[in-house]
Amino acid sequence: MKINMMHGAGGAVFGELLGETLTKYKNNNAGGIGLESLDDGAVIPIDGKNIVLTTDSHVVRPLFFPGGDIGRIAVCGTANDLAMMGGKPLALTCSMIIEEGFDIEILERIVQSMDSALEEAGASIVTGDTKVLAKGEIDGIAINTAGIGIAEKPVRDSALKPGDIIIVSGTLGDHGLAIMTSREGFDFGEQIRSDVAPVWNLVNAAMQAGEVHAMKDPTRGGFSNAINEMAEKSGVQVRISEESLPIRRSVRSASELLGINPLDVANEGKVVMGVAPEDAEAILAAIKKDKYGKDAAIVGRVVEGKSVIMETGIGGERFIEPPVGDPVPRVC
Amino acid sequence: MKINMMHGAGGAVFGELLGETLTKYKNNNAGGIGLESLDDGAVIPIDGKNIVLTTDSHVVRPLFFPGGDIGRIAVCGTANDLAMMGGKPLALTCSMIIEEGFDIEILERIVQSMDSALEEAGASIVTGDTKVLAKGEIDGIAINTAGIGIAEKPVRDSALKPGDIIIVSGTLGDHGLAIMTSREGFDFGEQIRSDVAPVWNLVNAAMQAGEVHAMKDPTRGGFSNAINEMAEKSGVQVRISEESLPIRRSVRSASELLGINPLDVANEGKVVMGVAPEDAEAILAAIKKDKYGKDAAIVGRVVEGKSVIMETGIGGERFIEPPVGDPVPRVC
Repeated sequence: MKINMMHGAGGAVFGELLGETLTKYKNNNAGGIGLESLDDGAVIPIDGKNIVLTTDSHVVRPLFFPGGDIGRIAVCGTANDLAMMGGKPLALTCSMIIEEGFDIEILERIVQSMDSALEEAGASIVTGDTKVLAKGEIDGIAINTAGIGIAEKPVRDSALKPGDIIIVSGTLGDHGLAIMTSREGFDFGEQIRSDVAPVWNLVNAAMQAGEVHAMKDPTRGGFSNAINEMAEKSGVQVRISEESLPIRRSVRSASELLGINPLDVANEGKVVMGVAPEDAEAILAAIKKDKYGKDAAIVGRVVEGKSVIMETGIGGERFIEPPVGDPVPRVC
Repeated sequence: MKINMMHGAGGAVFGELLGETLTKYKNNNAGGIGLESLDDGAVIPIDGKNIVLTTDSHVVRPLFFPGGDIGRIAVCGTANDLAMMGGKPLALTCSMIIEEGFDIEILERIVQSMDSALEEAGASIVTGDTKVLAKGEIDGIAINTAGIGIAEKPVRDSALKPGDIIIVSGTLGDHGLAIMTSREGFDFGEQIRSDVAPVWNLVNAAMQAGEVHAMKDPTRGGFSNAINEMAEKSGVQVRISEESLPIRRSVRSASELLGINPLDVANEGKVVMGVAPEDAEAILAAIKKDKYGKDAAIVGRVVEGKSVIMETGIGGERFIEPPVGDPVPRVC
C-alpha cells in the first residue's frame, strides 16, 4: 500500500492513515491530552500548569500570495493551534528544510515576515534547525514550527453539548481561494486575500466573555472538516443555517468559477466555537471587537444526534460532509 | 546569493547563514535561553520550572542503516538535545512530510522504531502533523520532531572554565561512518554500526555525580565542530590528547579508506562534557556504568586562551578545526 495525495488532505483518507499507522505509538501521552485525542495540540500538566504543545509543517505554494506568505502561515498556524487548546502562545521552534539554490533574499523576506507575525502573536522563536537538501530532493523550502503555550483552562474540540451555539469568527474560504486564484493566475485585485492571522487575542476575549465548550480552527478541509470532527468527537448533531454563514461575495464568485466549495478549503485566521447558549451573544460581541473578528457570526446550534446538517434558506436540509480529498493541495 | 550544500553542513558556512539570516528575529527569547544562544535548545522559565524546548528535522539516507533508522534518529536526536540542556525528555511532537508513493509498510516500520526509542527515552509523542507532497517534491520522507523537557539546572554549551576536564561518553565517528559505508555499499558486517541512542540516563548520572559545566552532543560536524563551538562560546582554549580519543579500530580503518576524519562526522548517542576537575573521575565512573557510556574517556582539558589544540602522541601539536562543509550530507 502506497501513500497517495488523499493521505495528506486532512479528510477521511488521511483519517485512515492516522488511525492505522501514524497514531500507533504506545508512548503517546505525557499525562494530559495526548496523541490519542487527535486534537489541535497536546496538553501536559506540569506542577499545576497546563503546557500546550503543537506542531505543523508548512509547504504552501506559492510562497508569497495575496494577504500572506509561508512565513506568516508558519507562525500563525502553530500559534493558532495553541490558541485552539485555550493556550496563550509563548515560544515557537523553527526548523527549515531548504533546497540547494534557494535564494537567500527570499529566505530573508520569509524570516522578516515570521518576525512580524511573532510580534503580533506575542510569541518568540527560541530555537531552530536547518537542513539543506540537494537540488530536486525538496521543492524549495518546507518550514516546521512547533510551539508551547500555557492554558488556564484547556479547551478541546470534542466537548460540544446539546444546546450549544456555534460561532465562526469571520468569513470562510478566504485563504483557500486566495491560494487557488493566485495559482491559477486569476486577478481579483485585492478582493481575495488570505485571512492568515494570529487569533489568540480573539480567542482570549471570547473565553473571558463566557463559556467556550469546544474550539477548532478550520484549516485543511475547511469548515466542513472542522465542524464534522467536532460533531463526531462530541457525539452530537450540529445544525448550520446556510444563510448565516459569512462568505465574501468575491470568494463565493471565485469558488463558483473554480468549482470549489468555500466551506471545504482552508482558513488560516478563523475559529469555530461551540459556546454555552446563555453566553453566545456576549461572546459574539467580544469577538466582534477584535480586529480579526469583525465578521463573526452565529451560524448554528448543537442538538442530540449525529452528523452536520445544513438548513437551507428555502427550508431544505442536506448533510455537510467532510471533503474526501483536498481541493487545494499544498494550501498551508 | 543562493543556498548551497555547505549551508546545511553545520560548519562555518552554515554559521554565516545563521548569523546573517536565520537568527535575525527580534522576537527570539521567551525569558530564558533563546535563539541568540544558538545552543542545543532553549530554556523557558515557567513558575520556577525550567522548560527546555528543541527541534530537529531528519532527512537521513538510507532510511535504515546498520544500528538504526530515521525513526530512531528522529526520537533520539531531539531527546538528546533536551538532555544537552540538562533537561529530562518529557514529550515530543512528530511532523512528517511524505512523498506520494511512499510505502506505508516502511512508514509502519519507522513508527515502530520511533515507539521503541520513546520507550527507552522515557518520552511520548503527544501531537503531530502530516503533509503529503506530490512525487518529486520531497525525496521520500522528512521527519521533524520537537520536544520539551524539564531541567532542574539548565546546562549550556558555553560555560567551560579553565581547569575543566573534557569527557566524551564513548567512541567517536560511529554514526557518520555507518551511514557512509552503508551508502557506499561496503560490507563491514556488524562492525560499523550507528551509535544512535538516547543519552538522558547517562547525562543524568553524570550530573548527579558531580559538577557538569557544559555539554554538547557531537552531531553534524562531529566532535571537531562541537568542541570548537564549546571553546569559542566559552572564550577558552581546549587541549585534546589524541591518544585518549576513543575511536573503534573498524571506524578508523573505514575512515582511512574513505578519506574521512572520524572526528568530523556525526555521532547520535554521544556527549562531550566539560566538568569540574575534582569531580572528573566520579563523573567518568558514573557514565561508564551506563549501557551507552562503557567507552567513555577523559580526552582533554580546558586552559585560558582560544582554539582547540590536539596534542599528538609524539609530542606535536595541531589545531582541531571545525569542518568547513559536511563530509557526509544527509547524515541525520
